[in-house]
Amino acid sequence: MSHTTEEQQFEEYVASLGQAAKKAAQQLCILSTGQKNQWLLESARLISENHGPIIEANAKDLEKAKQDGKDDAFIDRLTIGEKLLNGLVEQLNQVAQLPDPVGSISQLNTQPSGIKVGKMRMPIGVITMIYESRPNVTVEAAALAIKSGNAIILRGGSDAIHSNTILAKLLNEAAVNVGITQGAIQLVEQLDRKVVGLLLQAKDYIDVVIPRGGKGLVSLVDNLASVPVIKHLDGICHTYIDDSADLEKAVSIAVNAKTHRYGVCNAMETLLVNKAIAKTVFEKLLPEYQAKEVELRCCPAAYALAQAQGVAAVEATEDDWATEYLAPILSIKLVEDMQEAIEHIAAYGSNHTEVIVTENYTRAQHFLRAVDAASVMVNASSRFADGFEYGLGAEIGISTNKLHVRGPVGLEGLTTEKYVVYGQGETR
Amino acid sequence: MSHTTEEQQFEEYVASLGQAAKKAAQQLCILSTGQKNQWLLESARLISENHGPIIEANAKDLEKAKQDGKDDAFIDRLTIGEKLLNGLVEQLNQVAQLPDPVGSISQLNTQPSGIKVGKMRMPIGVITMIYESRPNVTVEAAALAIKSGNAIILRGGSDAIHSNTILAKLLNEAAVNVGITQGAIQLVEQLDRKVVGLLLQAKDYIDVVIPRGGKGLVSLVDNLASVPVIKHLDGICHTYIDDSADLEKAVSIAVNAKTHRYGVCNAMETLLVNKAIAKTVFEKLLPEYQAKEVELRCCPAAYALAQAQGVAAVEATEDDWATEYLAPILSIKLVEDMQEAIEHIAAYGSNHTEVIVTENYTRAQHFLRAVDAASVMVNASSRFADGFEYGLGAEIGISTNKLHVRGPVGLEGLTTEKYVVYGQGETR
Repeated sequence: MSHTTEEQQFEEYVASLGQAAKKAAQQLCILSTGQKNQWLLESARLISENHGPIIEANAKDLEKAKQDGKDDAFIDRLTIGEKLLNGLVEQLNQVAQLPDPVGSISQLNTQPSGIKVGKMRMPIGVITMIYESRPNVTVEAAALAIKSGNAIILRGGSDAIHSNTILAKLLNEAAVNVGITQGAIQLVEQLDRKVVGLLLQAKDYIDVVIPRGGKGLVSLVDNLASVPVIKHLDGICHTYIDDSADLEKAVSIAVNAKTHRYGVCNAMETLLVNKAIAKTVFEKLLPEYQAKEVELRCCPAAYALAQAQGVAAVEATEDDWATEYLAPILSIKLVEDMQEAIEHIAAYGSNHTEVIVTENYTRAQHFLRAVDAASVMVNASSRFADGFEYGLGAEIGISTNKLHVRGPVGLEGLTTEKYVVYGQGETR
Repeated sequence: MSHTTEEQQFEEYVASLGQAAKKAAQQLCILSTGQKNQWLLESARLISENHGPIIEANAKDLEKAKQDGKDDAFIDRLTIGEKLLNGLVEQLNQVAQLPDPVGSISQLNTQPSGIKVGKMRMPIGVITMIYESRPNVTVEAAALAIKSGNAIILRGGSDAIHSNTILAKLLNEAAVNVGITQGAIQLVEQLDRKVVGLLLQAKDYIDVVIPRGGKGLVSLVDNLASVPVIKHLDGICHTYIDDSADLEKAVSIAVNAKTHRYGVCNAMETLLVNKAIAKTVFEKLLPEYQAKEVELRCCPAAYALAQAQGVAAVEATEDDWATEYLAPILSIKLVEDMQEAIEHIAAYGSNHTEVIVTENYTRAQHFLRAVDAASVMVNASSRFADGFEYGLGAEIGISTNKLHVRGPVGLEGLTTEKYVVYGQGETR
């Protein structure tokens, strides 16, 4: 009985991380904007001055990853070069310039009893970030945590451990240099997966978990977590071209939404076209997809139209409507009217980003309200569903949750509101 | 293999409730304010016209409860009389008069790309309410669900089944009378507890669960649920009397917070007093508690002071600081300064409602920001933490969650925001 088991050791480790984070959170929530900005700028300075050691640490990770036979895309995401470091420094400086969401009070009104009641925006508390072997996430997530006043526990992919360790060390050194409490940024150094499992259950210490990575990682986190998770799983985004759409807008939006980037969650995966306008749209649109070698998977009516126009296509299966291709593949369906489009989206969409192209005022308004998604757009490419494009200044991820925060998550998404009451001795 | 098991039957039942609710939710989110108000007013009318049948159904529940030997408090909560029915009718009429939160758009700004981005407030979708044998909750919860455009699944205590059934029937009849879709309000009629367990896991259908009742019910729901839960468990509320407090305000707030009502979550359970002012405060305050027969459980320093003043008190144990008495009992602790009070609250509080009494500007501001609770107050009784007192117009419960909604939950707490984008053909 004198030996602690491995399980106990992991539990103690998670408790020590959690306690340190909670303690730090109590200090972080009262930091002034100036102190947080100093910390960000000092972090930027330390990273600029330590390109050499960072790239050296990264080389160890890269060597091991290559030995382990990781593929080029993996190596690419793991690699830290001068350009990436300059980008991180710029991001830290940019986050310092963003408005501080913490402490702002809204809706402050006097009630009949005489008390003034408002809502004060505050840090959530303790955030845990779980991500793949992309060391840039370590700095990007820490920067947003610092500015929003949250303590953060970082669990990056184990293949990036040397890179993450030096980056986290520099961020903590920056805190010390500007006189800020320890424990705000903690890197999980015990890489056993059981520790991740325990973190995801640590409701007493951790307020929210944000997974960042592929769908496998996100759904694993979501399934294991009893702590709330800010996440999106799929991005099965639709564009519906209404019969009263402007033809040019329809074509350029449909081309952009599919082909601007293929591997992103806000790319269009299914195109819905009102059958009354389908022939005209297809004549302009399908050649553009052909030129970009986009594979078209069509409902029978769309298939017939494509055939008639001599455009290569295949018939879509039921699975196609529920697939996020993340590739130069597009499913296409003709619909009778907007209502059928809305119902298709409700049945197959992933509540991420949905678009209508129309010149009809009433239908535009109806679509915006009736479609249940984190972002609903009229006459714009779904590729705009992005924190920077929405003016958030930064983005830590995208949420398709219904509670707390939906869509791109910036600094405000890392905060919560509490009621504040200004009284003058009132009693009930 | 030709018989379905009980388990399967329950699963099918929950799926049928969930599917009907989801289908209804798609219609509810596009109802106009006028349609929702008509429904509320028609519900009020049907309840006014059916006092007889409602009271008859309630009599069946009461008879059984009495046979089962339920205590007076239970019977009291279960009983529907004329007064309660008139109150419900008034509440339905009041909710009809509240502003409709759905469809409002905030923060609509034009971005550099030309797109206009804003946030539209929408119903959450499908709410499940789990509550004890208080049939009034059936109507109150349904009224807020109707106005906020949510479908609701109601699982009231089994002892109120006859009362709940007729009330739900009238609410649905009202929907039919004003031409609104079915499935918006569903009462769980299969009362096996396994059905509750399945509902709490039904993430595909249910967006949020709100338990309403004693701590036993709430923690049971919280432990079993994988669906998000809006809840509070404890209300261990503190009042800190600072050394620069106004004596009269301090005394009247401390008396009101403890003695206005004992069994409520926003009653004070622990009083923290700066030791520099304790003697003066005690001289005015303790006799008031004595007169109301409040038992005082004191830290050694407070105990000594009470003794010296000839006021009966007992010494507090460690458990007292972590106890929600819901009774005429108060724990009292003297502290060196505000910082010690804040640390005591962080250690023992339940993040519900915390109060400072002070005339010091800087300390008031610091306390408001540093204390992590759903409501933080200066110079007001914690008893004000209430949806009606905060001007929400209605209250479905109180949340001490950090995400989504904190404090009293009204109509806005039953909604969520999605991004809406108004474009003119923009692409990236």
